Amino acid sequence: MELDYVRWLTEQLSAGGPIALGIGDDAAVVNIEPGRQLVVTSDMITDQVHFDLGLHAAERIGRKALAVNLSDLAAMAAEPLAAVVSLNLPREHEPRQLAEQLTEGMIPLAEQLGCPVIGGDTNVTRGPLVISVTAFGTVDAGTAWRRSGAKPGDRMLVTGKLGGSLQGHHLDFTPRVAEALQLASQYDIHAAMDLSDGLSLDLARMTKASHVGAVVELAKLPITEQAARAAVDSGKSPAMHALSDGEDFELLLAVPPAVSAELLATQPLACGLTDVGEFTADTSLVQLNADGTREALLATGYEHR
Amino acid sequence: MELDYVRWLTEQLSAGGPIALGIGDDAAVVNIEPGRQLVVTSDMITDQVHFDLGLHAAERIGRKALAVNLSDLAAMAAEPLAAVVSLNLPREHEPRQLAEQLTEGMIPLAEQLGCPVIGGDTNVTRGPLVISVTAFGTVDAGTAWRRSGAKPGDRMLVTGKLGGSLQGHHLDFTPRVAEALQLASQYDIHAAMDLSDGLSLDLARMTKASHVGAVVELAKLPITEQAARAAVDSGKSPAMHALSDGEDFELLLAVPPAVSAELLATQPLACGLTDVGEFTADTSLVQLNADGTREALLATGYEHR
Repeated sequence: MELDYVRWLTEQLSAGGPIALGIGDDAAVVNIEPGRQLVVTSDMITDQVHFDLGLHAAERIGRKALAVNLSDLAAMAAEPLAAVVSLNLPREHEPRQLAEQLTEGMIPLAEQLGCPVIGGDTNVTRGPLVISVTAFGTVDAGTAWRRSGAKPGDRMLVTGKLGGSLQGHHLDFTPRVAEALQLASQYDIHAAMDLSDGLSLDLARMTKASHVGAVVELAKLPITEQAARAAVDSGKSPAMHALSDGEDFELLLAVPPAVSAELLATQPLACGLTDVGEFTADTSLVQLNADGTREALLATGYEHR
Repeated sequence: MELDYVRWLTEQLSAGGPIALGIGDDAAVVNIEPGRQLVVTSDMITDQVHFDLGLHAAERIGRKALAVNLSDLAAMAAEPLAAVVSLNLPREHEPRQLAEQLTEGMIPLAEQLGCPVIGGDTNVTRGPLVISVTAFGTVDAGTAWRRSGAKPGDRMLVTGKLGGSLQGHHLDFTPRVAEALQLASQYDIHAAMDLSDGLSLDLARMTKASHVGAVVELAKLPITEQAARAAVDSGKSPAMHALSDGEDFELLLAVPPAVSAELLATQPLACGLTDVGEFTADTSLVQLNADGTREALLATGYEHR
């Protein structure tokens, strides 16, 4: 649904005027002054779709609502400015208390990453709980990372580890804002996006936007303990979990080989950077298995509906 | 609910850093460069609370979702820059078609007032339809209108006519963006807000924020034909409809007497400007009846829940 609608919407709305980058990347980019641009992202999460109010503490849910937006700012290497939050509070859940709990979950993350909540809207409805966050950041003009800049020969790097996010990481992750700003200030990064729907699906989006293909080396994937444990029960390999579980909220980067070599040698990020493959001129997506065989990489990530 | 939560939230979040004006006005103001500020507003509307998807065409609903946000930008005298839209689409309503209809309702207004929709988020859920819009604009630093600037002796002006909005105006109104920019560029306006919940309730908010009182002259209220007709059935006076029906989305202005005199003499706005009373040092709210008697003005507008 979402992809079709985004395509249709993109056709309706032409970039131009103050709009430097419209619909289709992790965030939109707007010219606000010579030399500086505004980066805007908006994500809405809903009970029973993105979280379960019956299972998860409201504070963790509120934190996630802000975090997914900050992850989109990180994907653009934008410096956070502020966020606005709108809440639809279900009548049967003591709405005032719920609003406070959701907000209390946001505030530490907002302070940690320099993105104060400056306004919003609250309504009490018959439900479900809906949390809509719009986050703003800024970049020097022309420096926002995009998903469309990967070049054949670029190395494919990811931050942190992948897979098993639904065991808890999807509620407690720290958006890679600081890491993105650190990399953007010192290194030539060709393309970036955040991994929200699984490496295989998000990689397909990056390669399509960049008009390239890619080879992913399964043996190199950095795999979380949660994914390794999940594989014991699921019958899928840990690597398949890392490829398709979704909600990792790590960064996927396309980096020139010389820059990649330096990053891997110096490892400037505490979360680690791992080389997991290469971007190619051939536009197909290939997985290189541990035994040296190759097969088509299926985009099997999680599409939120 | 909302007022209590906003008060609590304001206590949690201190203005400062880039935040020039936080929670509590029609929109927030953020410093983005020397001399220029970003104005941000976010309103979320929901089926069965703010509209009825069973009764109203989706295009009109989509238009309203954008319009209420543009009205908040008008209330700050901000020049629109862009908006992002997030949709929770109910599964049973052909979500893709509904998304297109909602958006098609927004586009003409977005083009008319120079506020392109540049991104957002869509989810399909069990319902109800939720539309969250965040609109942002810019102002020269320090020039954003606020509701807190009314001074004793200021005249109270309103644009257009009041009352009876639920007969259709609440879906089809044109936000007073052009009017606000015209006034702000030429006249000294002490305070402003948009009338979303009825003159009596919104006036109480402005006087509280400004630490003043006010006298409203009922005989002067500009009353819509819809309010006059509604009064025939309701048993309330047309003036009471104009005071409390809500969703007028006209501008309420506090203006120095000399400026008011010039505005009333020259009538620079096509929608008209009407003097409806005075702001006072005494912090009470008074209504001056047509027969010359005075009584306490009750804040009886519509609070959305």
